[in-house]
Amino acid sequence: MTPLDTEARNRDLPPLGETGWQAVPGRDALRKVWKFRNFSQAWGFMSRVALEAERLNHHPEWRNVYNLVDVTLTTHDCNGLSTLDIKLAKAMDRIAGPAEVAPQDGAPVLSLCQERAAGRGA
Amino acid sequence: MTPLDTEARNRDLPPLGETGWQAVPGRDALRKVWKFRNFSQAWGFMSRVALEAERLNHHPEWRNVYNLVDVTLTTHDCNGLSTLDIKLAKAMDRIAGPAEVAPQDGAPVLSLCQERAAGRGA
Amino acid sequence: MTPLDTEARNRDLPPLGETGWQAVPGRDALRKVWKFRNFSQAWGFMSRVALEAERLNHHPEWRNVYNLVDVTLTTHDCNGLSTLDIKLAKAMDRIAGPAEVAPQDGAPVLSLCQERAAGRGA
Amino acid sequence: MTPLDTEARNRDLPPLGETGWQAVPGRDALRKVWKFRNFSQAWGFMSRVALEAERLNHHPEWRNVYNLVDVTLTTHDCNGLSTLDIKLAKAMDRIAGPAEVAPQDGAPVLSLCQERAAGRGA
Repeated sequence: MTPLDTEARNRDLPPLGETGWQAVPGRDALRKVWKFRNFSQAWGFMSRVALEAERLNHHPEWRNVYNLVDVTLTTHDCNGLSTLDIKLAKAMDRIAGPAEVAPQDGAPVLSLCQERAAGRGA
Repeated sequence: MTPLDTEARNRDLPPLGETGWQAVPGRDALRKVWKFRNFSQAWGFMSRVALEAERLNHHPEWRNVYNLVDVTLTTHDCNGLSTLDIKLAKAMDRIAGPAEVAPQDGAPVLSLCQERAAGRGA
Repeated sequence: MTPLDTEARNRDLPPLGETGWQAVPGRDALRKVWKFRNFSQAWGFMSRVALEAERLNHHPEWRNVYNLVDVTLTTHDCNGLSTLDIKLAKAMDRIAGPAEVAPQDGAPVLSLCQERAAGRGA
Repeated sequence: MTPLDTEARNRDLPPLGETGWQAVPGRDALRKVWKFRNFSQAWGFMSRVALEAERLNHHPEWRNVYNLVDVTLTTHDCNGLSTLDIKLAKAMDRIAGPAEVAPQDGAPVLSLCQERAAGRGA
Protein backbone atom coordinates (compact mmCIF):
# COMPACT_ATOMS: atom_id res chain seq x y z
CA MET A 1 0.00 0.00 0.00
CA THR A 2 1.36 3.38 -0.96
CA PRO A 3 0.22 6.65 0.59
CA LEU A 4 -2.31 8.71 -1.34
CA ASP A 5 -0.41 11.19 -3.52
CA THR A 6 -1.20 14.86 -4.06
CA GLU A 7 -3.20 14.31 -7.22
CA ALA A 8 -5.38 11.62 -5.65
CA ARG A 9 -5.92 13.77 -2.55
CA ASN A 10 -7.05 16.74 -4.60
CA ARG A 11 -9.38 14.57 -6.61
CA ASP A 12 -10.84 12.23 -3.98
CA LEU A 13 -10.91 14.11 -0.69
CA PRO A 14 -13.07 17.15 -1.48
CA PRO A 15 -16.10 15.04 -2.52
CA LEU A 16 -15.77 13.09 0.73
CA GLY A 17 -15.62 16.34 2.65
CA GLU A 18 -18.94 17.30 1.11
CA THR A 19 -20.61 14.15 2.46
CA GLY A 20 -19.40 14.87 5.99
CA TRP A 21 -15.95 13.29 6.29
CA GLN A 22 -13.48 15.40 8.28
CA ALA A 23 -9.77 15.34 9.05
CA VAL A 24 -8.62 13.92 12.38
CA PRO A 25 -6.36 16.51 14.06
CA GLY A 26 -2.79 15.25 14.23
CA ARG A 27 -3.40 12.17 12.07
CA ASP A 28 -3.57 11.53 8.35
CA ALA A 29 -7.02 10.03 8.79
CA LEU A 30 -10.67 10.56 7.83
CA ARG A 31 -13.54 10.52 10.29
CA LYS A 32 -17.32 10.50 9.96
CA VAL A 33 -20.06 9.94 12.52
CA TRP A 34 -23.46 8.59 11.58
CA LYS A 35 -26.55 8.83 13.72
CA PHE A 36 -29.08 6.17 12.82
CA ARG A 37 -32.63 5.87 14.12
CA ASN A 38 -31.84 2.97 16.44
CA PHE A 39 -29.39 0.15 17.10
CA SER A 40 -30.98 -2.11 14.49
CA GLN A 41 -30.36 0.38 11.70
CA ALA A 42 -26.81 1.09 12.92
CA TRP A 43 -26.13 -2.65 13.05
CA GLY A 44 -27.52 -3.24 9.55
CA PHE A 45 -25.06 -0.61 8.31
CA MET A 46 -22.15 -2.15 10.20
CA SER A 47 -22.99 -5.66 8.96
CA ARG A 48 -22.79 -4.52 5.36
CA VAL A 49 -19.62 -2.50 5.93
CA ALA A 50 -18.01 -5.55 7.57
CA LEU A 51 -18.52 -7.50 4.32
CA GLU A 52 -16.89 -4.72 2.32
CA ALA A 53 -14.00 -4.34 4.77
CA GLU A 54 -13.21 -8.05 4.60
CA ARG A 55 -13.50 -8.01 0.82
CA LEU A 56 -11.00 -5.13 0.60
CA ASN A 57 -8.95 -6.64 3.44
CA HIS A 58 -9.01 -3.14 4.91
CA HIS A 59 -10.80 -2.52 8.18
CA PRO A 60 -12.12 0.61 9.87
CA GLU A 61 -11.50 1.82 13.37
CA TRP A 62 -15.07 2.20 14.54
CA ARG A 63 -17.01 2.81 17.68
CA ASN A 64 -20.69 2.15 18.22
CA VAL A 65 -22.97 3.35 20.98
CA TYR A 66 -26.59 2.41 20.32
CA ASN A 67 -27.55 4.40 17.18
CA LEU A 68 -24.17 6.13 16.67
CA VAL A 69 -21.41 4.75 14.46
CA ASP A 70 -18.18 6.72 14.65
CA VAL A 71 -15.69 5.71 11.95
CA THR A 72 -12.03 6.57 11.49
CA LEU A 73 -10.20 5.46 8.37
CA THR A 74 -6.47 5.30 7.86
CA THR A 75 -4.01 2.72 6.57
CA HIS A 76 -1.72 1.47 9.30
CA ASP A 77 0.66 -0.17 6.85
CA CYS A 78 1.53 3.14 5.21
CA ASN A 79 0.97 5.30 8.27
CA GLY A 80 -1.62 7.48 6.54
CA LEU A 81 -4.35 7.57 3.92
CA SER A 82 -4.24 5.19 0.96
CA THR A 83 -6.56 4.38 -1.93
CA LEU A 84 -8.17 1.71 0.27
CA ASP A 85 -9.45 4.41 2.62
CA ILE A 86 -11.07 6.23 -0.28
CA LYS A 87 -12.72 3.01 -1.45
CA LEU A 88 -14.00 2.14 2.00
CA ALA A 89 -15.23 5.70 2.64
CA LYS A 90 -17.19 5.69 -0.62
CA ALA A 91 -18.65 2.26 0.12
CA MET A 92 -19.76 3.45 3.56
CA ASP A 93 -21.46 6.50 2.07
CA ARG A 94 -23.25 4.26 -0.42
CA ILE A 95 -24.38 1.82 2.26
CA ALA A 96 -25.45 4.50 4.76
CA GLY A 97 -27.67 6.13 2.17
CA PRO A 98 -29.60 9.09 3.54
CA ALA A 99 -28.75 8.42 7.22
CA GLU A 100 -28.09 11.47 9.38
CA VAL A 101 -24.49 12.63 9.75
CA ALA A 102 -23.71 13.71 13.30
CA PRO A 103 -21.54 16.74 14.03
CA GLN A 104 -17.93 16.22 15.11
CA ASP A 105 -15.14 18.59 16.03
CA GLY A 106 -12.64 17.59 13.36
CA ALA A 107 -10.78 19.75 10.85
CA PRO A 108 -11.88 20.31 7.24
CA VAL A 109 -10.97 17.39 5.03
CA LEU A 110 -9.14 19.89 2.81
CA SER A 111 -6.33 20.00 5.36
CA LEU A 112 -5.48 16.48 4.20
CA CYS A 113 -5.01 17.68 0.60
CA GLN A 114 -1.24 17.84 0.68
CA GLU A 115 1.27 15.18 -0.11
CA ARG A 116 2.46 13.89 3.22
CA ALA A 117 5.91 13.11 1.88
CA ALA A 118 6.25 16.79 1.00
CA GLY A 119 4.97 17.75 4.42
CA ARG A 120 7.50 15.53 6.10
CA GLY A 121 10.30 16.91 3.91
CA ALA A 122 9.58 20.46 4.97
CA MET B 1 -48.28 -19.45 22.42
CA THR B 2 -51.85 -19.84 21.26
CA PRO B 3 -52.85 -20.15 17.62
CA LEU B 4 -54.10 -17.03 15.90
CA ASP B 5 -57.90 -16.92 16.26
CA THR B 6 -60.42 -16.04 13.57
CA GLU B 7 -60.69 -12.40 14.56
CA ALA B 8 -56.93 -11.88 14.50
CA ARG B 9 -56.64 -13.68 11.17
CA ASN B 10 -59.30 -11.49 9.57
CA ARG B 11 -57.65 -8.36 10.92
CA ASP B 12 -53.94 -9.11 10.45
CA LEU B 13 -53.58 -11.38 7.44
CA PRO B 14 -55.15 -9.34 4.63
CA PRO B 15 -52.73 -6.40 5.09
CA LEU B 16 -49.83 -8.87 4.96
CA GLY B 17 -51.28 -10.35 1.79
CA GLU B 18 -51.18 -6.91 0.24
CA THR B 19 -47.42 -6.59 0.88
CA GLY B 20 -46.73 -9.93 -0.82
CA TRP B 21 -47.05 -12.60 1.88
CA GLN B 22 -48.74 -15.79 0.65
CA ALA B 23 -50.05 -18.99 2.20
CA VAL B 24 -47.89 -22.11 2.06
CA PRO B 25 -49.99 -24.92 0.56
CA GLY B 26 -50.68 -27.60 3.17
CA ARG B 27 -49.27 -25.62 6.09
CA ASP B 28 -50.62 -22.91 8.34
CA ALA B 29 -47.67 -20.70 7.41
CA LEU B 30 -46.83 -17.41 5.69
CA ARG B 31 -44.17 -17.05 2.99
CA LYS B 32 -42.55 -14.11 1.24
CA VAL B 33 -39.54 -13.90 -1.06
CA TRP B 34 -37.45 -10.77 -1.36
CA LYS B 35 -35.07 -10.05 -4.20
CA PHE B 36 -32.41 -7.55 -3.16
CA ARG B 37 -29.87 -5.90 -5.42
CA ASN B 38 -26.96 -8.03 -4.19
CA PHE B 39 -25.76 -10.21 -1.34
CA SER B 40 -24.70 -7.21 0.75
CA GLN B 41 -28.20 -5.76 0.77
CA ALA B 42 -29.77 -9.17 1.45
CA TRP B 43 -27.34 -9.69 4.33
CA GLY B 44 -28.02 -6.27 5.83
CA PHE B 45 -31.72 -7.21 5.87
CA MET B 46 -31.03 -10.60 7.46
CA SER B 47 -28.74 -9.07 10.10
CA ARG B 48 -31.48 -6.73 11.25
CA VAL B 49 -34.15 -9.45 11.15
CA ALA B 50 -31.88 -11.70 13.25
CA LEU B 51 -31.88 -9.04 16.00
CA GLU B 52 -35.67 -8.86 15.93
CA ALA B 53 -36.06 -12.65 15.88
CA GLU B 54 -33.85 -13.04 18.93
CA ARG B 55 -35.66 -10.22 20.69
CA LEU B 56 -39.03 -11.92 20.08
CA ASN B 57 -37.48 -15.33 20.72
CA HIS B 58 -39.22 -16.36 17.51
CA HIS B 59 -37.18 -17.36 14.50
CA PRO B 60 -37.95 -17.64 10.80
CA GLU B 61 -37.32 -20.53 8.49
CA TRP B 62 -35.32 -18.76 5.81
CA ARG B 63 -33.25 -19.56 2.79
CA ASN B 64 -30.75 -17.28 1.12
CA VAL B 65 -29.14 -17.57 -2.30
CA TYR B 66 -27.08 -14.48 -3.14
CA ASN B 67 -29.67 -11.67 -3.40
CA LEU B 68 -32.75 -13.76 -2.62
CA VAL B 69 -34.18 -14.19 0.87
CA ASP B 70 -37.05 -16.68 1.05
CA VAL B 71 -38.86 -16.58 4.38
CA THR B 72 -41.45 -18.91 5.88
CA LEU B 73 -43.11 -18.04 9.18
CA THR B 74 -45.01 -20.37 11.45
CA THR B 75 -44.97 -21.20 15.15
CA HIS B 76 -43.78 -24.73 15.78
CA ASP B 77 -44.97 -24.72 19.39
CA CYS B 78 -48.60 -24.27 18.37
CA ASN B 79 -48.35 -26.02 15.02
CA GLY B 80 -49.57 -22.98 13.09
CA LEU B 81 -49.65 -19.21 12.97
CA SER B 82 -49.48 -17.18 16.19
CA THR B 83 -49.27 -13.50 17.04
CA LEU B 84 -45.46 -13.82 16.94
CA ASP B 85 -45.61 -14.57 13.23
CA ILE B 86 -47.64 -11.43 12.63
CA LYS B 87 -45.11 -9.38 14.62
CA LEU B 88 -42.13 -10.83 12.80
CA ALA B 89 -43.80 -10.46 9.39
CA LYS B 90 -44.52 -6.78 10.07
CA ALA B 91 -40.97 -6.21 11.32
CA MET B 92 -39.56 -7.79 8.17
CA ASP B 93 -41.73 -5.60 5.95
CA ARG B 94 -40.53 -2.54 7.87
CA ILE B 95 -36.86 -3.54 7.62
CA ALA B 96 -37.02 -4.55 3.94
CA GLY B 97 -38.47 -1.18 3.00
CA PRO B 98 -38.99 -0.80 -0.74
CA ALA B 99 -37.02 -3.94 -1.70
CA GLU B 100 -38.44 -5.96 -4.58
CA VAL B 101 -40.79 -8.84 -3.76
CA ALA B 102 -40.14 -11.89 -5.92
CA PRO B 103 -42.99 -13.99 -7.29
CA GLN B 104 -43.76 -17.33 -5.65
CA ASP B 105 -46.30 -20.02 -6.36
CA GLY B 106 -48.14 -19.98 -3.03
CA ALA B 107 -51.85 -19.61 -2.29
CA PRO B 108 -53.56 -16.31 -1.40
CA VAL B 109 -53.01 -15.37 2.22
CA LEU B 110 -56.80 -15.19 2.54
CA SER B 111 -56.91 -18.97 2.59
CA LEU B 112 -55.39 -18.73 6.06
CA CYS B 113 -58.29 -16.59 7.30
CA GLN B 114 -60.16 -19.31 9.10
CA GLU B 115 -59.84 -20.50 12.63
CA ARG B 116 -57.85 -23.70 12.46
CA ALA B 117 -59.55 -25.09 15.53
CA ALA B 118 -62.87 -24.76 13.66
CA GLY B 119 -61.33 -26.37 10.61
CA ARG B 120 -60.08 -29.24 12.67
CA GLY B 121 -63.45 -29.63 14.34
CA ALA B 122 -65.26 -29.96 11.02
CA MET C 1 -14.64 -20.31 -13.31
CA THR C 2 -13.83 -23.77 -14.66
CA PRO C 3 -15.40 -26.97 -13.34
CA LEU C 4 -13.34 -29.02 -10.90
CA ASP C 5 -11.36 -31.58 -12.90
CA THR C 6 -10.86 -35.26 -12.05
CA GLU C 7 -7.55 -34.74 -10.28
CA ALA C 8 -8.90 -31.97 -8.06
CA ARG C 9 -12.01 -34.02 -7.28
CA ASN C 10 -9.97 -37.03 -6.22
CA ARG C 11 -7.74 -34.85 -4.06
CA ASP C 12 -10.22 -32.44 -2.49
CA LEU C 13 -13.55 -34.22 -2.16
CA PRO C 14 -12.68 -37.26 0.00
CA PRO C 15 -11.40 -35.10 2.91
CA LEU C 16 -14.62 -33.07 2.76
CA GLY C 17 -16.62 -36.30 2.80
CA GLU C 18 -14.86 -37.20 6.04
CA THR C 19 -16.05 -33.99 7.72
CA GLY C 20 -19.66 -34.67 6.76
CA TRP C 21 -20.16 -33.14 3.31
CA GLN C 22 -22.35 -35.27 1.02
CA ALA C 23 -23.37 -35.26 -2.64
CA VAL C 24 -26.73 -33.79 -3.59
CA PRO C 25 -28.60 -36.39 -5.68
CA GLY C 26 -28.98 -35.20 -9.25
CA ARG C 27 -26.74 -32.15 -8.87
CA ASP C 28 -23.00 -31.60 -8.95
CA ALA C 29 -23.16 -30.00 -5.50
CA LEU C 30 -21.97 -30.49 -1.92
CA ARG C 31 -24.24 -30.33 1.11
CA LYS C 32 -23.67 -30.25 4.86
CA VAL C 33 -26.03 -29.57 7.74
CA TRP C 34 -24.83 -28.17 11.04
CA LYS C 35 -26.78 -28.32 14.27
CA PHE C 36 -25.66 -25.62 16.68
CA ARG C 37 -26.72 -25.24 20.30
CA ASN C 38 -29.03 -22.29 19.61
CA PHE C 39 -29.78 -19.51 17.14
CA SER C 40 -27.02 -17.28 18.51
CA GLN C 41 -24.32 -19.83 17.76
CA ALA C 42 -25.80 -20.58 14.33
CA TRP C 43 -25.90 -16.86 13.57
CA GLY C 44 -22.30 -16.31 14.70
CA PHE C 45 -21.28 -19.02 12.23
CA MET C 46 -23.33 -17.51 9.41
CA SER C 47 -21.97 -14.02 10.09
CA ARG C 48 -18.40 -15.23 9.68
CA VAL C 49 -19.24 -17.31 6.60
CA ALA C 50 -20.91 -14.25 5.04
CA LEU C 51 -17.60 -12.37 5.28
CA GLU C 52 -15.76 -15.22 3.59
CA ALA C 53 -18.41 -15.59 0.88
CA GLU C 54 -18.22 -11.91 0.00
CA ARG C 55 -14.41 -12.03 0.04
CA LEU C 56 -14.43 -14.96 -2.42
CA ASN C 57 -17.37 -13.45 -4.31
CA HIS C 58 -18.89 -16.89 -4.06
CA HIS C 59 -22.05 -17.42 -2.07
CA PRO C 60 -23.72 -20.48 -0.57
CA GLU C 61 -27.29 -21.62 -0.92
CA TRP C 62 -28.21 -21.91 2.72
CA ARG C 63 -31.23 -22.41 4.89
CA ASN C 64 -31.52 -21.65 8.57
CA VAL C 65 -34.15 -22.75 11.06
CA TYR C 66 -33.22 -21.76 14.62
CA ASN C 67 -30.07 -23.80 15.38
CA LEU C 68 -29.82 -25.60 12.02
CA VAL C 69 -27.76 -24.32 9.10
CA ASP C 70 -28.21 -26.35 5.93
CA VAL C 71 -25.66 -25.46 3.25
CA THR C 72 -25.47 -26.40 -0.41
CA LEU C 73 -22.44 -25.40 -2.46
CA THR C 74 -22.18 -25.31 -6.22
CA THR C 75 -21.00 -22.82 -8.81
CA HIS C 76 -23.86 -21.55 -10.94
CA ASP C 77 -21.53 -20.02 -13.53
CA CYS C 78 -20.03 -23.38 -14.42
CA ASN C 79 -23.08 -25.46 -13.61
CA GLY C 80 -21.21 -27.63 -11.10
CA LEU C 81 -18.43 -27.70 -8.54
CA SER C 82 -15.44 -25.41 -8.91
CA THR C 83 -12.39 -24.62 -6.79
CA LEU C 84 -14.42 -21.87 -5.10
CA ASP C 85 -16.73 -24.48 -3.61
CA ILE C 86 -13.76 -26.34 -2.15
CA LYS C 87 -12.43 -23.10 -0.64
CA LEU C 88 -15.78 -22.14 0.84
CA ALA C 89 -16.41 -25.66 2.18
CA LYS C 90 -13.02 -25.67 3.92
CA ALA C 91 -13.60 -22.20 5.34
CA MET C 92 -16.98 -23.29 6.71
CA ASP C 93 -15.45 -26.35 8.37
CA ARG C 94 -12.77 -24.12 9.95
CA ILE C 95 -15.35 -21.60 11.21
CA ALA C 96 -17.82 -24.21 12.49
CA GLY C 97 -15.11 -25.85 14.57
CA PRO C 98 -16.42 -28.74 16.64
CA ALA C 99 -20.13 -27.99 16.02
CA GLU C 100 -22.38 -31.00 15.58
CA VAL C 101 -23.02 -32.24 12.04
CA ALA C 102 -26.64 -33.26 11.51
CA PRO C 103 -27.59 -36.31 9.46
CA GLN C 104 -28.89 -35.84 5.93
CA ASP C 105 -30.04 -38.23 3.26
CA GLY C 106 -27.51 -37.37 0.55
CA ALA C 107 -25.19 -39.62 -1.41
CA PRO C 108 -21.53 -40.23 -0.53
CA VAL C 109 -19.31 -37.39 -1.65
CA LEU C 110 -17.27 -39.98 -3.58
CA SER C 111 -20.01 -40.08 -6.21
CA LEU C 112 -18.82 -36.60 -7.20
CA CYS C 113 -15.29 -37.90 -7.88
CA GLN C 114 -15.63 -38.13 -11.62
CA GLU C 115 -15.02 -35.54 -14.22
CA ARG C 116 -18.46 -34.25 -15.17
CA ALA C 117 -17.47 -33.68 -18.77
CA ALA C 118 -16.60 -37.37 -18.99
CA GLY C 119 -19.81 -38.30 -17.23
CA ARG C 120 -21.85 -36.24 -19.64
CA GLY C 121 -20.03 -37.82 -22.56
CA ALA C 122 -20.87 -41.35 -21.44
CA MET D 1 -33.47 0.56 35.89
CA THR D 2 -32.06 0.97 39.39
CA PRO D 3 -28.36 1.24 40.13
CA LEU D 4 -26.61 -1.89 41.35
CA ASP D 5 -26.72 -1.90 45.15
CA THR D 6 -23.89 -2.78 47.52
CA GLU D 7 -24.91 -6.38 47.92
CA ALA D 8 -25.13 -7.01 44.19
CA ARG D 9 -21.78 -5.26 43.65
CA ASN D 10 -20.06 -7.43 46.23
CA ARG D 11 -21.57 -10.56 44.75
CA ASP D 12 -21.34 -9.90 41.01
CA LEU D 13 -18.32 -7.70 40.39
CA PRO D 14 -15.45 -9.77 41.82
CA PRO D 15 -16.12 -12.75 39.50
CA LEU D 16 -16.14 -10.34 36.54
CA GLY D 17 -12.84 -8.89 37.75
CA GLU D 18 -11.38 -12.37 37.61
CA THR D 19 -12.27 -12.75 33.91
CA GLY D 20 -10.56 -9.46 33.04
CA TRP D 21 -13.18 -6.74 33.50
CA GLN D 22 -11.79 -3.54 35.01
CA ALA D 23 -13.18 -0.28 36.36
CA VAL D 24 -13.13 2.78 34.12
CA PRO D 25 -11.44 5.63 36.04
CA GLY D 26 -13.94 8.36 36.85
CA ARG D 27 -16.99 6.41 35.68
CA ASP D 28 -19.19 3.77 37.23
CA ALA D 29 -18.50 1.49 34.30
CA LEU D 30 -16.90 -1.84 33.39
CA ARG D 31 -14.39 -2.32 30.59
CA LYS D 32 -12.82 -5.32 28.91
CA VAL D 33 -10.72 -5.64 25.77
CA TRP D 34 -10.61 -8.82 23.72
CA LYS D 35 -7.95 -9.65 21.18
CA PHE D 36 -9.21 -12.18 18.66
CA ARG D 37 -7.15 -13.92 16.01
CA ASN D 38 -8.52 -11.85 13.14
CA PHE D 39 -11.42 -9.63 12.07
CA SER D 40 -13.62 -12.60 11.23
CA GLN D 41 -13.44 -13.98 14.75
CA ALA D 42 -13.96 -10.52 16.28
CA TRP D 43 -16.97 -9.99 14.04
CA GLY D 44 -18.48 -13.38 14.90
CA PHE D 45 -18.28 -12.35 18.56
CA MET D 46 -19.83 -8.94 17.90
CA SER D 47 -22.64 -10.46 15.83
CA ARG D 48 -23.65 -12.71 18.68
CA VAL D 49 -23.33 -9.94 21.28
CA ALA D 50 -25.53 -7.70 19.11
CA LEU D 51 -28.32 -10.28 19.34
CA GLU D 52 -28.01 -10.40 23.12
CA ALA D 53 -27.86 -6.60 23.43
CA GLU D 54 -31.05 -6.19 21.42
CA ARG D 55 -32.75 -8.95 23.41
CA LEU D 56 -31.87 -7.19 26.69
CA ASN D 57 -32.55 -3.80 25.11
CA HIS D 58 -29.21 -2.81 26.62
CA HIS D 59 -26.34 -1.91 24.35
CA PRO D 60 -22.59 -1.70 24.86
CA GLU D 61 -20.25 1.13 24.04
CA TRP D 62 -17.75 -0.72 21.90
CA ARG D 63 -14.86 -0.05 19.61
CA ASN D 64 -13.39 -2.40 17.06
CA VAL D 65 -10.10 -2.23 15.21
CA TYR D 66 -9.44 -5.36 13.18
CA ASN D 67 -9.08 -8.13 15.81
CA LEU D 68 -9.60 -5.95 18.90
CA VAL D 69 -12.98 -5.42 20.54
CA ASP D 70 -12.93 -2.88 23.35
CA VAL D 71 -16.13 -2.87 25.39
CA THR D 72 -17.42 -0.45 28.03
CA LEU D 73 -20.60 -1.23 29.90
CA THR D 74 -22.71 1.19 31.90
CA THR D 75 -26.39 2.10 32.08
CA HIS D 76 -27.04 5.61 30.86
CA ASP D 77 -30.56 5.69 32.29
CA CYS D 78 -29.30 5.28 35.85
CA ASN D 79 -25.95 6.96 35.35
CA GLY D 80 -23.98 3.93 36.49
CA LEU D 81 -23.94 0.15 36.66
CA SER D 82 -27.20 -1.80 36.75
CA THR D 83 -28.13 -5.48 36.66
CA LEU D 84 -28.29 -5.24 32.86
CA ASP D 85 -24.55 -4.55 32.75
CA ILE D 86 -23.88 -7.67 34.78
CA LYS D 87 -26.08 -9.73 32.45
CA LEU D 88 -24.43 -8.37 29.33
CA ALA D 89 -20.91 -8.79 30.78
CA LYS D 90 -21.62 -12.43 31.62
CA ALA D 91 -23.12 -13.05 28.17
CA MET D 92 -20.03 -11.55 26.52
CA ASP D 93 -17.72 -13.75 28.58
CA ARG D 94 -19.78 -16.80 27.59
CA ILE D 95 -19.75 -15.87 23.89
CA ALA D 96 -16.05 -14.94 23.78
CA GLY D 97 -15.10 -18.30 25.23
CA PRO D 98 -11.33 -18.74 25.51
CA ALA D 99 -10.44 -15.66 23.44
CA GLU D 100 -7.43 -13.68 24.61
CA VAL D 101 -8.04 -10.73 26.96
CA ALA D 102 -5.86 -7.75 26.10
CA PRO D 103 -4.26 -5.59 28.79
CA GLN D 104 -5.79 -2.21 29.59
CA ASP D 105 -4.87 0.49 32.04
CA GLY D 106 -8.08 0.55 34.08
CA ALA D 107 -8.56 0.29 37.85
CA PRO D 108 -9.41 -2.94 39.69
CA VAL D 109 -13.07 -3.82 39.41
CA LEU D 110 -13.15 -3.92 43.21
CA SER D 111 -13.12 -0.13 43.23
CA LEU D 112 -16.69 -0.36 41.95
CA CYS D 113 -17.77 -2.40 44.98
CA GLN D 114 -19.40 0.42 46.89
CA GLU D 115 -22.90 1.69 46.76
CA ARG D 116 -22.76 4.82 44.68
CA ALA D 117 -25.65 6.40 46.52
CA ALA D 118 -23.64 6.04 49.73
CA GLY D 119 -20.57 7.42 47.99
CA ARG D 120 -22.50 10.42 46.82
CA GLY D 121 -23.90 10.92 50.32
CA ALA D 122 -20.47 10.99 51.91
